[in-house]
Amino acid sequence: MGPKKRKLGRGVAIVGAGMSRFGVFKEKASRDLFVDAFLAMKASVDKGIDVSMIEALYLGNLTSDLFEGQCHLAPIMADWLGMVPKPATRFEDACASGGVAMREAIIAIAAGFYDVILVGGVEKMSNLTTAQVTDALASAGDILYEVPSGFTFPGFYAAIATAYMHKYGAQPDHFMSVGLKNHHNGALNPKAQYQSTIEDLMAKRISKLKEKGGAAPAWGDVWDFLRDGDANPVVAWPLRLFDCSPITDGAACLLLVAEELAGSFTDRPVHLIGTGQGSGSAMHGRADVTSLEGARAAAAEAYQMAGVTPQDIKIAEVHDCFTSAEIIASEDLGFFGRGEGSRAAFEGATARTGKKPINTSGGLKSKGHPIGASGVAQAVEIWTQMREEAGKRQVKNVDLALTHNVGATGGTCVVHIYERR
Amino acid sequence: MGPKKRKLGRGVAIVGAGMSRFGVFKEKASRDLFVDAFLAMKASVDKGIDVSMIEALYLGNLTSDLFEGQCHLAPIMADWLGMVPKPATRFEDACASGGVAMREAIIAIAAGFYDVILVGGVEKMSNLTTAQVTDALASAGDILYEVPSGFTFPGFYAAIATAYMHKYGAQPDHFMSVGLKNHHNGALNPKAQYQSTIEDLMAKRISKLKEKGGAAPAWGDVWDFLRDGDANPVVAWPLRLFDCSPITDGAACLLLVAEELAGSFTDRPVHLIGTGQGSGSAMHGRADVTSLEGARAAAAEAYQMAGVTPQDIKIAEVHDCFTSAEIIASEDLGFFGRGEGSRAAFEGATARTGKKPINTSGGLKSKGHPIGASGVAQAVEIWTQMREEAGKRQVKNVDLALTHNVGATGGTCVVHIYERR
Repeated sequence: MGPKKRKLGRGVAIVGAGMSRFGVFKEKASRDLFVDAFLAMKASVDKGIDVSMIEALYLGNLTSDLFEGQCHLAPIMADWLGMVPKPATRFEDACASGGVAMREAIIAIAAGFYDVILVGGVEKMSNLTTAQVTDALASAGDILYEVPSGFTFPGFYAAIATAYMHKYGAQPDHFMSVGLKNHHNGALNPKAQYQSTIEDLMAKRISKLKEKGGAAPAWGDVWDFLRDGDANPVVAWPLRLFDCSPITDGAACLLLVAEELAGSFTDRPVHLIGTGQGSGSAMHGRADVTSLEGARAAAAEAYQMAGVTPQDIKIAEVHDCFTSAEIIASEDLGFFGRGEGSRAAFEGATARTGKKPINTSGGLKSKGHPIGASGVAQAVEIWTQMREEAGKRQVKNVDLALTHNVGATGGTCVVHIYERR
Repeated sequence: MGPKKRKLGRGVAIVGAGMSRFGVFKEKASRDLFVDAFLAMKASVDKGIDVSMIEALYLGNLTSDLFEGQCHLAPIMADWLGMVPKPATRFEDACASGGVAMREAIIAIAAGFYDVILVGGVEKMSNLTTAQVTDALASAGDILYEVPSGFTFPGFYAAIATAYMHKYGAQPDHFMSVGLKNHHNGALNPKAQYQSTIEDLMAKRISKLKEKGGAAPAWGDVWDFLRDGDANPVVAWPLRLFDCSPITDGAACLLLVAEELAGSFTDRPVHLIGTGQGSGSAMHGRADVTSLEGARAAAAEAYQMAGVTPQDIKIAEVHDCFTSAEIIASEDLGFFGRGEGSRAAFEGATARTGKKPINTSGGLKSKGHPIGASGVAQAVEIWTQMREEAGKRQVKNVDLALTHNVGATGGTCVVHIYERR
């Protein structure tokens, strides 16, 4: 059988979207974060939504099992929203859990099976120590082959980054440019975990050092700051602190409905016109680690379904768990040729004012990365941009957009394509 | 909005089904068990199946996170079968994980989105101690409210059983009769964890005691054995050892295809004509714990979709994680009136030769309960019975059957209805 052309039996639209504030909230459990996101979503539905109209909950979550000791999260969330006895299911594909929950909801609505689905994503990570979180996340790698050889996720992505540098002559500055950009964007996002540019952080550091009467550091500009092993320590070379997404608590929600019903909820829906999903082997099974086979497969499926090309896409939210991952994503999605994504990012092509803005929300790097919520929160940003409600980070004329959500090092990849009509 | 009548856009059929041996296999990881199940499924497809024809993997698993330290299980399984880069997703709703994976696959095929899906379920539990397994399973309860009050699953189900006894005058013997029956069935299932009747186990015990020269116990019959606190110790009153399903390693697989394509795989498919799913509040939020709201909702949805009644169902596999749960299930499904299931079971109505045979496979009690696999393995039994390949446990003329899969104490319930034409 050759590659199959898939289509949606009927149209699917987003008629509401919202997220909790992303950050570190020690006093909140995942259910509290989820209610925050639900209320934000509810407030966004122009003509209103009552919870009794929702037929099912599709929830993305990586591992409340390890983070909170809580399996079976979906019906708890449904109960807290007053949805019992409606169906509630959790979907897990590591950091792509939110993306796969969304995809299955799209399929179920396209099937004519459900008309109104609440898609949610949530992760509560901050109650463990950083070492415990790193261990929990490592379980998304292959625990028989990869983890025993000493890899955790910064290590995996550092290995990918060095392979990319070797193959294409890229430099750490190329990666750092992504972090700089995403902090520029996140600083304009009131829901983001970090609302400071890296330049701001540098200025704060300088003034703090001066207060203490210490010698002012010899940083000519932000690049000196980013290359300084004290200011921006190496986590796993070539990736430094500002190349890595943080540990985050957060949740996000979308209201997905059959397109024919969208008008009951809003006159300005966002249409979902393509979905793609692919899997990938564990790192040790890949011929080439500088591109994700699953991402290419997911993108091909989604573009074909939507009938659009990479050139048509106005903005994209991509999975920048590490800065190098954003660059590879921009190539896997066909925005730039293989090996050309690093220079494109460095030269500003993916900035908010560039020709292909990426991660206007701040991305996982600056907005934060509550794992199961991330894929859903990407869609929240597209919704916000398409409805021209993105304030200072608004990009003009966003009529076609894409999200790209990756599990682990590419074991799962999900791509969605959005249209404003 | 009133209760919505749902339908499947196009028919869905099972054209292959298989399971690994269920039991304790210290040397096997979940991926090994899964490959065993896949090969058994493959061998069952009359006209053959090549893995390249499969479009996606839908995998049920409770918590490889806690049992094996492995999240993101689905793409690993896909990779081991040579399915990369096809989509692979894990579905989790506690012990109903297999059932929800099946349901979403049915919806996706009915949508016309996929034609051929591999549905799998797997759990690898035995590498932890019994106490660790009990703790891991407790995480499927509510960890903010239920678990801190000291409940683990035998305790939850004991509370339900005592409430049922109080309300309807049932006795522990009623529950024990379910264990007796399910061991009678499991003894005839070559894939079951326990292939002994309780009578056999009693006889072995007697002969062992005699070998040692000890006094023969004063057991007049198997009921004396079952009421003996030494032979059948109380786990959580009124539930004793032979009321509880065991800790099991195992996997199960189904090949689901669009009905219009079934003929390419077999001339004897099993048709899926109804699916239902419901959620339930945590135990402390229920007005009545002797019936599951989610199970009633799931059954109503499935019966309505299939256009059949409880009386039409020839056999059922129901979620007997504890013997008392099977009795309540038989009432929630409408086979017997409220409070009448205990006497019906005790009097043999649910035996293989009774008017409504339940758990001909041996059920979770005797076949074993590898959590994520259980919902899928229920369908394997229906397939086997409908194809008249069940050997000594074969029931005649099984043309309509049902499965009932429960997560935790009823947070999730899934019901499927099967037809042989």
